[in-house]
Amino acid sequence: MKDMAVTSDLLVDISQLQTRYARCIDADRIEEWPDFFTEDGFYSVTTAENRRAGLEAGLIWLDGIGMIRDRVTALRDANIYERHSYRHVLGQPYVLGESDGGDIEVETSFFVVRITRDGETDVFASGCYHDALRRVDGDLKLSKRIAVCDSSHIDTLLGLPL
Amino acid sequence: MKDMAVTSDLLVDISQLQTRYARCIDADRIEEWPDFFTEDGFYSVTTAENRRAGLEAGLIWLDGIGMIRDRVTALRDANIYERHSYRHVLGQPYVLGESDGGDIEVETSFFVVRITRDGETDVFASGCYHDALRRVDGDLKLSKRIAVCDSSHIDTLLGLPL
Amino acid sequence: MKDMAVTSDLLVDISQLQTRYARCIDADRIEEWPDFFTEDGFYSVTTAENRRAGLEAGLIWLDGIGMIRDRVTALRDANIYERHSYRHVLGQPYVLGESDGGDIEVETSFFVVRITRDGETDVFASGCYHDALRRVDGDLKLSKRIAVCDSSHIDTLLGLPL
Repeated sequence: MKDMAVTSDLLVDISQLQTRYARCIDADRIEEWPDFFTEDGFYSVTTAENRRAGLEAGLIWLDGIGMIRDRVTALRDANIYERHSYRHVLGQPYVLGESDGGDIEVETSFFVVRITRDGETDVFASGCYHDALRRVDGDLKLSKRIAVCDSSHIDTLLGLPL
Repeated sequence: MKDMAVTSDLLVDISQLQTRYARCIDADRIEEWPDFFTEDGFYSVTTAENRRAGLEAGLIWLDGIGMIRDRVTALRDANIYERHSYRHVLGQPYVLGESDGGDIEVETSFFVVRITRDGETDVFASGCYHDALRRVDGDLKLSKRIAVCDSSHIDTLLGLPL
Repeated sequence: MKDMAVTSDLLVDISQLQTRYARCIDADRIEEWPDFFTEDGFYSVTTAENRRAGLEAGLIWLDGIGMIRDRVTALRDANIYERHSYRHVLGQPYVLGESDGGDIEVETSFFVVRITRDGETDVFASGCYHDALRRVDGDLKLSKRIAVCDSSHIDTLLGLPL
């Protein structure tokens, strides 16, 4: 990993991408979710405990845009997503540096509340995104997003992308 | 709505305005709250469910600075505001573009926790601000703020501006 | 206090410092925590109620880098920190101005969730950082951080820096 200059313009680009991503999920437009990834994009959800233990597997593991698109179909078919609504709040992105492949490595705290049908609001998940970002035709995209959840008791159905 | 360039300076201006607004509410200085609006400012609180259903009414509907000022008097007279304290946490502002009238249209996730007198902290409200911003004598002001709450079971007393 | 120009570069510097600080705590690397302070750094935790009442004392009061380092040893010895994990989410920094001594005075809302061993996530603390920042050999450091908690019923053990 190489150091890189963190300009305010770069941070704006990153945080606008991450905000658009969160808006897409919170507005239940998950059909648009694959568009945030590169063709070889990788998406995974794991827990801090698993990560510390060196377990790579994760709860969800999607390698390539095809698997990411399939996930959307599966979620819609399962129909489990519609029962609640969600709200993401993100911290400031923290730029770690540039990977050997030229991607920008970024970590960002997240926090998701769930609003159930009966109106109750609770903390659904918290954690940290481990992202790799790459510019494709001028637009910043995710070549990798690993959502590392703080709790090891994540709802196994996990009916939404984090 | 026209696209507009999102510079880091513009985002700083917007987020500093939104942060000042949140500070004003959280510090219980609601007498200063009307100053964040233009003379023809509009403020409303509604729910995501109502908005999806095309219901314009909202739980709270204040059209013009006069009604906004009256609201402050009503809240102080009702005396319901003092029982709890609140803390806003905001996401990054997302700039949609420029309206026909030249206002900047922005959406921003929010999240409010309530701290009751006995010290308990819970999630009070989450949602999205739909703002229109306009520069008046150099300062950015709200010509519109619609606070769209995720939950449909918002405390009907709602003793604070969101 | 003097007014100062809030450039996007300054805000980036401040928020990257605050984000690094939060990452350090959330990743349980509290041995690095003293490095965020100047040699004469001051760290305190208090409540909004105490502060309104003019009580200076606070729940925690560390004056100088020596006391701050001792705190880390005490926390590790007490061994109470490891039972839970924590996640900070910060609002945008709000720059108040420049102090007589040339430090940058900043206030920032914070919000901490606690994830217990059995996987439950709840709101642990919310409040506002009252920071003074100073550049030392090019790097921004805290010459003062007063964490003012909204709730008066803060866990007295308080096994982590806020």
